Amino acid sequence: VPEPAPWTNSAAVLHGVNDMRFENFPLPDRTPSGNVRVEIKAVGICGSDVHYWRKGRIADFVLTDPMVIGHESAGTVVEVGEDVTRLKVGDRVALEPGVPCWSNPASREGRYNLDPDIRFFATPPHHGSLAQFVDHPADFCFRLPEHLTHEEGAMVEPLSVGVHAVRRAGVSPGKTVAIMGAGPIGLVTLMAVKAFGADAVAITDIKRDNLDLAMKLGADVALNPDRDAAPQEVATWMRAALPPNGPDIVIDCAGFEPTLQASIYSVIAGGKVISVGMGCDHAHLPLSTINCKEIDLMGSFRYANTYPLCLNLMASKKVDVMPLITHRFGFTPEDVAAAFDCAARSAETRAIKVMFNLP
Amino acid sequence: VPEPAPWTNSAAVLHGVNDMRFENFPLPDRTPSGNVRVEIKAVGICGSDVHYWRKGRIADFVLTDPMVIGHESAGTVVEVGEDVTRLKVGDRVALEPGVPCWSNPASREGRYNLDPDIRFFATPPHHGSLAQFVDHPADFCFRLPEHLTHEEGAMVEPLSVGVHAVRRAGVSPGKTVAIMGAGPIGLVTLMAVKAFGADAVAITDIKRDNLDLAMKLGADVALNPDRDAAPQEVATWMRAALPPNGPDIVIDCAGFEPTLQASIYSVIAGGKVISVGMGCDHAHLPLSTINCKEIDLMGSFRYANTYPLCLNLMASKKVDVMPLITHRFGFTPEDVAAAFDCAARSAETRAIKVMFNLP
Amino acid sequence: VPEPAPWTNSAAVLHGVNDMRFENFPLPDRTPSGNVRVEIKAVGICGSDVHYWRKGRIADFVLTDPMVIGHESAGTVVEVGEDVTRLKVGDRVALEPGVPCWSNPASREGRYNLDPDIRFFATPPHHGSLAQFVDHPADFCFRLPEHLTHEEGAMVEPLSVGVHAVRRAGVSPGKTVAIMGAGPIGLVTLMAVKAFGADAVAITDIKRDNLDLAMKLGADVALNPDRDAAPQEVATWMRAALPPNGPDIVIDCAGFEPTLQASIYSVIAGGKVISVGMGCDHAHLPLSTINCKEIDLMGSFRYANTYPLCLNLMASKKVDVMPLITHRFGFTPEDVAAAFDCAARSAETRAIKVMFNLP
Amino acid sequence: VPEPAPWTNSAAVLHGVNDMRFENFPLPDRTPSGNVRVEIKAVGICGSDVHYWRKGRIADFVLTDPMVIGHESAGTVVEVGEDVTRLKVGDRVALEPGVPCWSNPASREGRYNLDPDIRFFATPPHHGSLAQFVDHPADFCFRLPEHLTHEEGAMVEPLSVGVHAVRRAGVSPGKTVAIMGAGPIGLVTLMAVKAFGADAVAITDIKRDNLDLAMKLGADVALNPDRDAAPQEVATWMRAALPPNGPDIVIDCAGFEPTLQASIYSVIAGGKVISVGMGCDHAHLPLSTINCKEIDLMGSFRYANTYPLCLNLMASKKVDVMPLITHRFGFTPEDVAAAFDCAARSAETRAIKVMFNLP
Ligand SMILES: NC(=O)c1ccc[n+]([C@@H]2O[C@H](COP(=O)([O-])OP(=O)(O)OC[C@H]3O[C@@H](n4cnc5c(N)ncnc54)[C@H](O)[C@@H]3O)[C@@H](O)[C@H]2O)c1
Ligand SMILES: NC(=O)c1ccc[n+]([C@@H]2O[C@H](COP(=O)([O-])OP(=O)(O)OC[C@H]3O[C@@H](n4cnc5c(N)ncnc54)[C@H](O)[C@@H]3O)[C@@H](O)[C@H]2O)c1
Ligand SMILES: NC(=O)c1ccc[n+]([C@@H]2O[C@H](COP(=O)([O-])OP(=O)(O)OC[C@H]3O[C@@H](n4cnc5c(N)ncnc54)[C@H](O)[C@@H]3O)[C@@H](O)[C@H]2O)c1
Ligand SMILES: NC(=O)c1ccc[n+]([C@@H]2O[C@H](COP(=O)([O-])OP(=O)(O)OC[C@H]3O[C@@H](n4cnc5c(N)ncnc54)[C@H](O)[C@@H]3O)[C@@H](O)[C@H]2O)c1
Ligand SMILES: [Zn+2]
Ligand SMILES: [Zn+2]
Ligand SMILES: [Zn+2]
Ligand SMILES: [Zn+2]
Repeated sequence: VPEPAPWTNSAAVLHGVNDMRFENFPLPDRTPSGNVRVEIKAVGICGSDVHYWRKGRIADFVLTDPMVIGHESAGTVVEVGEDVTRLKVGDRVALEPGVPCWSNPASREGRYNLDPDIRFFATPPHHGSLAQFVDHPADFCFRLPEHLTHEEGAMVEPLSVGVHAVRRAGVSPGKTVAIMGAGPIGLVTLMAVKAFGADAVAITDIKRDNLDLAMKLGADVALNPDRDAAPQEVATWMRAALPPNGPDIVIDCAGFEPTLQASIYSVIAGGKVISVGMGCDHAHLPLSTINCKEIDLMGSFRYANTYPLCLNLMASKKVDVMPLITHRFGFTPEDVAAAFDCAARSAETRAIKVMFNLP
Repeated sequence: VPEPAPWTNSAAVLHGVNDMRFENFPLPDRTPSGNVRVEIKAVGICGSDVHYWRKGRIADFVLTDPMVIGHESAGTVVEVGEDVTRLKVGDRVALEPGVPCWSNPASREGRYNLDPDIRFFATPPHHGSLAQFVDHPADFCFRLPEHLTHEEGAMVEPLSVGVHAVRRAGVSPGKTVAIMGAGPIGLVTLMAVKAFGADAVAITDIKRDNLDLAMKLGADVALNPDRDAAPQEVATWMRAALPPNGPDIVIDCAGFEPTLQASIYSVIAGGKVISVGMGCDHAHLPLSTINCKEIDLMGSFRYANTYPLCLNLMASKKVDVMPLITHRFGFTPEDVAAAFDCAARSAETRAIKVMFNLP
Repeated sequence: VPEPAPWTNSAAVLHGVNDMRFENFPLPDRTPSGNVRVEIKAVGICGSDVHYWRKGRIADFVLTDPMVIGHESAGTVVEVGEDVTRLKVGDRVALEPGVPCWSNPASREGRYNLDPDIRFFATPPHHGSLAQFVDHPADFCFRLPEHLTHEEGAMVEPLSVGVHAVRRAGVSPGKTVAIMGAGPIGLVTLMAVKAFGADAVAITDIKRDNLDLAMKLGADVALNPDRDAAPQEVATWMRAALPPNGPDIVIDCAGFEPTLQASIYSVIAGGKVISVGMGCDHAHLPLSTINCKEIDLMGSFRYANTYPLCLNLMASKKVDVMPLITHRFGFTPEDVAAAFDCAARSAETRAIKVMFNLP
Repeated sequence: VPEPAPWTNSAAVLHGVNDMRFENFPLPDRTPSGNVRVEIKAVGICGSDVHYWRKGRIADFVLTDPMVIGHESAGTVVEVGEDVTRLKVGDRVALEPGVPCWSNPASREGRYNLDPDIRFFATPPHHGSLAQFVDHPADFCFRLPEHLTHEEGAMVEPLSVGVHAVRRAGVSPGKTVAIMGAGPIGLVTLMAVKAFGADAVAITDIKRDNLDLAMKLGADVALNPDRDAAPQEVATWMRAALPPNGPDIVIDCAGFEPTLQASIYSVIAGGKVISVGMGCDHAHLPLSTINCKEIDLMGSFRYANTYPLCLNLMASKKVDVMPLITHRFGFTPEDVAAAFDCAARSAETRAIKVMFNLP
């Protein structure tokens, strides 16, 4: 019997720095067992996608072979592999991009985002999801509630980053929160902070535009310091903005040395600083402040167990991610080039989230 | 009626840098309400006592007026103030040095060590306890179990620092622990780690002597790097010393930039780094490691609710602090001078804990 | 010097079963140190107040001497004792009725509601607050934000019961909640559940009226079983009402055997059942279900550290307690009689919260 | 190609009430992918095995088809399936009997013991491990440290029940613990309580023999009430046995109405009662005590993530399970009959743990 012809599949494939190609990325003839084949309908561009395109690496993850880009995605099931019972053809789904294995302690204890062997879309050497079709384990495809769009499905991914940070922080009524950085991640974190019931939330960015959007999305106060404002000064503002004692929790969604320092100086004694942003690899930090205020400085990495919750938050309209989508593109070679260009030049284009709508 | 003569009381009073005096520090004629008057029997010298003596300040706490030094103390009740029912004359007690007020949220939520208005022995402007007699709230004086000595009572203070760090870390069976620094605090932390049932504990110091003691006290592995060993290298050792995956928890009882970096590089993904040591005010830290391994870097400041537990650990012989007491002195002007000198020159004297025995 | 005349003070004093009197309850001439004297402006009637009036006891608390009734109260400071700095004459405050001492471990660990020596308004032998004036420790009087009324201040007390239960349950986005009982406590719990961001909340009561109010206040589903519906049947309804798997959390605000059984049968494996209601002293419970579903059945008793949070929830309009106040009375002998009668006959009067407005 | 002959395999197969047969239970010719084939060397008899043999059911699990019995087992790997890298032929392993799937939220959140679809040895319809050979997922086979025996490997299973309960309880230094019931589960719980560093542990049973063993294993106090002692009386004893305030934690390893009542009456306000024992399906419980003392009554069901920890506890000699093994049998038809008889008549035989040693 001849091997059946593989499944034709247009994809955006990153071959190297500044070398993105629109080409066929064939799939096997049949969907593998446990997987569903999803016709992708919406994919958002993330800062990390742009970073791989421009630099070819992030931290220790280095692009060595061509890789399909993209990881914020939703689509419709077109074929169902063996042993899949929870989904059927026609289901609209959001794709959770990281698929862990379950043999390591972190996964078994509920922190599967820390699985050292996790396969995550568009993190070398694993392919991403900016393609017509993607095969993905059914267990990591989540059905969209009736009134949600594919775009909203794609937005579950960035929202998950915010929700995970907010969960690690223990945001709830009775807590005030400061957010450093009002890029896409700062803004979804803001939404999550509000959904978790914080008493008040202040946000800061050096870009005024982003703060205007943050205020529309429900921030209580926005601070717009100069790029070279002293962290102690920013902290003084933050503490004044969140009476009586300053923020119980600070979530740093920028991740630069000044924002981290300002976070540590702002937070109350006994408070938490959640580090989400990856703006720098190393930072000079005031250790004695961490000790004497007994601060918990906690890294936050991707997410685990967020997809059903995020879909509920959207379905119940507690979170509306649509205002973040500022630019939309189709899925042709020209679109891919234009969309990535738009995202990379966000300072000019004022792009927050750039979204592909696939046919 | 003439004001009754105040109570005569010899005390070690720090008047300024390198200016410790043995002089009368009179107490009121009668023990204040809610307090007991304790005839002090044992006082340990802490690194901070030496620091105030040599530098006149620690962080933002500056010596401006004469201050009785000392905060690791135990003694015997000689008089009981009004409204005191839990203690009586003759009771042998350990004195918890920090007395919070209860009107701030931190105290009410169980973290009274973070009360901004706490009165802590020998922290300016509050007097300490290296004196013949001290008046102290009965609620912060803990009766010694029968077989414990006053010296052991005094050692509850440093042991509390270790116990608090260990509690914040969540040490328990199933966890491996690395300790950076084998000074007095590193060593009491080691004891606490073992009492809390860690699977294995490794300790590192640049001083070999201290590590020998650590091994006698139950450390499983001791690492003796050069002062200028690269933190990544120390981390590699630590991970090898604690199979299969390196430490779940690192407690830094040195607090220098290299030890903090080594802590962060050593710990497993999802692990905790507890910062106890105050070796430096600022440190350059690998933020991306904190983020990507989703580390909790947690300050630990003094302690709360540790005294009964520490007394139980000693009474049940799960912890034996006596090997830490390397030098003993009486309580005369000469003794005070000699004891502080011995503690300050610990590199030569090999002093771990220097203890006053008052008559 | 003659002892100054005591301060005249009308109060509702319970002398025995069905023996409530409106009489002078003199206060000392001057406000005691650490206290403020509050001119009471609003007091709500609680089920426990009615219970003492009708039965003279609750559990082990027995009325033996005349006792001022009332514990849900707010007013205005008219005099300030020594050592009070946080409040001044004219401040409008809500009174937290339970004043712990701080020498027991529970209080020091943040659970001061469990202090065995707590002094709680209108719990024998401690007087309550249904009086013209009350002296109360300043640390347990919380300033009302500008736009809140004294009535809202009084409602902080019952709301606190709901907030405490909700905190113990860990209500947050991602959780569905069922509430058993839609009396005043069930309804404030509903408000708290919503403020803490639950995905969905179902409520059940045998009284249809209360459920109508619950739906107006934001419940997602209301179930109105017969008084003799089988608990398994109620559980089946609840699980269907909260897809996909039934409630993650059940809060029983009725506390009868059937509601507790229904709670245990409803909740998902690994879920929590919070027992707030005191409808029965003993109940026959399905232990094997608790074990095999690994349920946490958690008592919830009063509250700790809730007042600032509740005031924030009201000030930010996340919670609106006003719809619960169905009946209002002045403060004369006739008013007291009529108000208690109204509260006691709530089945007929349809009273939810009966409120005194003092002149 | 002819289907290869299946693998011959003697097994103890339960066909119905009192109908255990020693017969061939063939395995597939080749070990399935992801599995290892283990030559079983040691299997302990558990109360539940006896229960299925005598009654044919436990709760809703009903024996309908013949089922291999046994779930406390260890052996040596004789063949390795495809895709197995962590184990090799010759490895000695303990078998974790419950294999979850990973598509349900409970498993993904770290509580895989609550997976509704878990396959657990000898729980209908899943076969057990009292057989010459068993195929088991490699991820649930844990290598024995060098000095541990196969018997110790088999004992990891019951020890896990104790460890899980102790983890849920949060046992640590600073806590006193009472254990109700000194059967095998009570005794392994005692070992776990001690390994987790409790300050003191009291244990009670109506059988004196078991208490003698408990004292040898390190209990601090043993109480031997009459079978019909009043729960309040047992509670009074317990509170006196664990000064100053009675147990912080009670772990009920009997699970009868009187032990549960005694647990609730004993425990301090704010304490935890862990329900492990399955002695009764329903119990009359003092709800008002649960409420007013704000008790957490928590079910405990099997275990998750305990195997590596238990092996460490044994390897480090913090736990020695060997004294529990009172009777040993080989693996012939006669042995199986005799061993089950011995376990079933434990009142006479004084059996604690009955162990098969397979050739
Ligand atoms: N931890 C994780 O799992 C995770 C996941 C996704 C993204 N990230 C990281 O989060 C960060 C934010 O992502 P994004 O997509 O929003 O990026 P972004 O670059 O759009 O947003 C960063 C924002 O921080 C602002 N900023 C820079 N310096 C500042 C300063 N000194 N004070 C205040 N604001 C300042 C910028 O103006 C910008 O708006 C990135 O570093 C990204 O790599 C982390
Ligand atoms: N957080 C708190 O509440 C608290 C309380 C008490 C003490 N402290 C602090 O804890 C620290 C330790 O106290 P101590 O009394 O044990 O002091 P110490 O100076 O005796 O001990 C520090 C130890 O760290 C070792 N060390 C230094 N550099 C090292 C390196 N690169 N690698 C390994 N080891 C190194 C030193 O040799 C020394 O033995 C001090 O900084 C003290 O101020 C903190
Ligand atoms: N734990 C605490 O700290 C605390 C504090 C305050 C009140 N409480 C207790 O909470 C309970 C509720 O207080 P409340 O003021 O709302 O009382 P309530 O009597 O007004 O409310 C109880 C509600 O439960 C309903 N109910 C009765 N049986 C039911 C059943 N089988 N199914 C469904 N609903 C049923 C009743 O119709 C009523 O509406 C009381 O027992 C009270 O003593 C406890
Ligand atoms: N929750 C779980 O995951 C789990 C796992 C294994 C076993 N179990 C259950 O745990 C229980 C204990 O298991 P086991 O193997 O030790 O059984 P067992 O029958 O040997 O032990 C029960 C002990 O409780 C004692 N007891 C009975 N009534 C008592 C009373 N009133 N006061 C004090 N002691 C009393 C008995 O004398 C006996 O020694 C069983 O019910 C078993 O089904 C639960
Ligand atoms: Zn992304
Ligand atoms: Zn000290
Ligand atoms: Zn009330
Ligand atoms: Zn078993």
